Amino acid sequence: MTQNIYDDETFFAGYSRLPRSVEGLGGAPEWPALRALLPGLRGLRVLDLGCGFGWFCRFVREQGAAHVTGIDVSQNMLEKAHAMTRDAAITYRRADMERLSLAPASFDLAYSSLALHYVARLAPLLLGVHQALVPGGRFVFSVEHPIYTAPAHPGWTRGAEGRATWPVDGYLEEGPRSTDWLAKGVIKQHRTLATWINTLRRAGFLLDHVEEWGPTEAQIAAQPALADERQRPAFLLIAARR
Amino acid sequence: MTQNIYDDETFFAGYSRLPRSVEGLGGAPEWPALRALLPGLRGLRVLDLGCGFGWFCRFVREQGAAHVTGIDVSQNMLEKAHAMTRDAAITYRRADMERLSLAPASFDLAYSSLALHYVARLAPLLLGVHQALVPGGRFVFSVEHPIYTAPAHPGWTRGAEGRATWPVDGYLEEGPRSTDWLAKGVIKQHRTLATWINTLRRAGFLLDHVEEWGPTEAQIAAQPALADERQRPAFLLIAARR
Repeated sequence: MTQNIYDDETFFAGYSRLPRSVEGLGGAPEWPALRALLPGLRGLRVLDLGCGFGWFCRFVREQGAAHVTGIDVSQNMLEKAHAMTRDAAITYRRADMERLSLAPASFDLAYSSLALHYVARLAPLLLGVHQALVPGGRFVFSVEHPIYTAPAHPGWTRGAEGRATWPVDGYLEEGPRSTDWLAKGVIKQHRTLATWINTLRRAGFLLDHVEEWGPTEAQIAAQPALADERQRPAFLLIAARR
Repeated sequence: MTQNIYDDETFFAGYSRLPRSVEGLGGAPEWPALRALLPGLRGLRVLDLGCGFGWFCRFVREQGAAHVTGIDVSQNMLEKAHAMTRDAAITYRRADMERLSLAPASFDLAYSSLALHYVARLAPLLLGVHQALVPGGRFVFSVEHPIYTAPAHPGWTRGAEGRATWPVDGYLEEGPRSTDWLAKGVIKQHRTLATWINTLRRAGFLLDHVEEWGPTEAQIAAQPALADERQRPAFLLIAARR
């Protein structure tokens, strides 16, 4: 079962103060790149896996989506999502993504932002998403990049030239990684980039685009602390279709 | 134009002494994984981009390929390939991969081992390979992995626990990398894994399989020096089809 760290009070308090929680989609630096992978949203039936506070659900409705189903395992997140939402065409549902049951061919777009790296059993979930999409339906998601999740001791080091360097080890050893991020012992699942792609392929998806996210020059100019993020990608963004 | 480092005498002398040069395909630890991506070879017309000493060309003929064209930019390599080959169904041709002209739909399989990372202009080459394949034709290749090619200062470091760590920086900055490997100033082109995949897609290829190569447990048992290679993938192997 996926660790439900968002219902840990310490974690949730910290998470709630992040720019992406306070400001919504615009507070996430990778959002413009992820948004660029989305199809036109008008009239679509949308599934959001790991919907959190519901920012994306409300966004796609503003863009004309017909209906949105937001799934999350965290009671904390869903309570806040409900409190921020007045829209009968948005349904929030509490569920563990590893035990998810979805009606066949019931969605035009499946989306997930930084949630699938918590899932230990990926293949059954991707098969379920595939069959829940209509033929031609899209699947757009982001996860932490394997270069980011691999190391036993993640964190920048600086060489003689002062350039930030990321210490990769354990890349080919897939499985859980425990890090102290907002709370102690947050468990994420490390898998290689090849595994992400091959698992999608085996579930039947066609790959449209892969992006290893780093900030643009304009983002670094506006927010110089992002500069190190050019040295290694923090996020993996993928667009695929049934 | 691609750097023709294999006609540098110092480099060539060093390269000629590597296990993969002396022993052929079996001297390359990634060969079993690359071989597993190949289709049945009987009757196929095969293209080998960067054929070197011709080991792969002779292998596919032994496996029943109808004809093989080996392309290489290095006069040194092709002279040795000719000297080792007695087979009228193998054609060696000297050409720069960046200025390659291939007849449309003339091959069933295109192959390349550790050569494409020398190519600066990848997109036109992949378009050329795509149109040179018959519909359904396969493209199987290996290159140095982007994690391997990215760093300004590639080389293992060892932390307190003694585990080998690979220093990733510059991952998102694509372009030439100069390293001293067998000779000074060997130029390879770093591109992200996303660029490899998206450039294949844009050329019209369908992706079958991606592999980030590391040694198996059996290989490490037989050759303990390979153990560090589990910490980060040295090679990227891709199987695609027109």
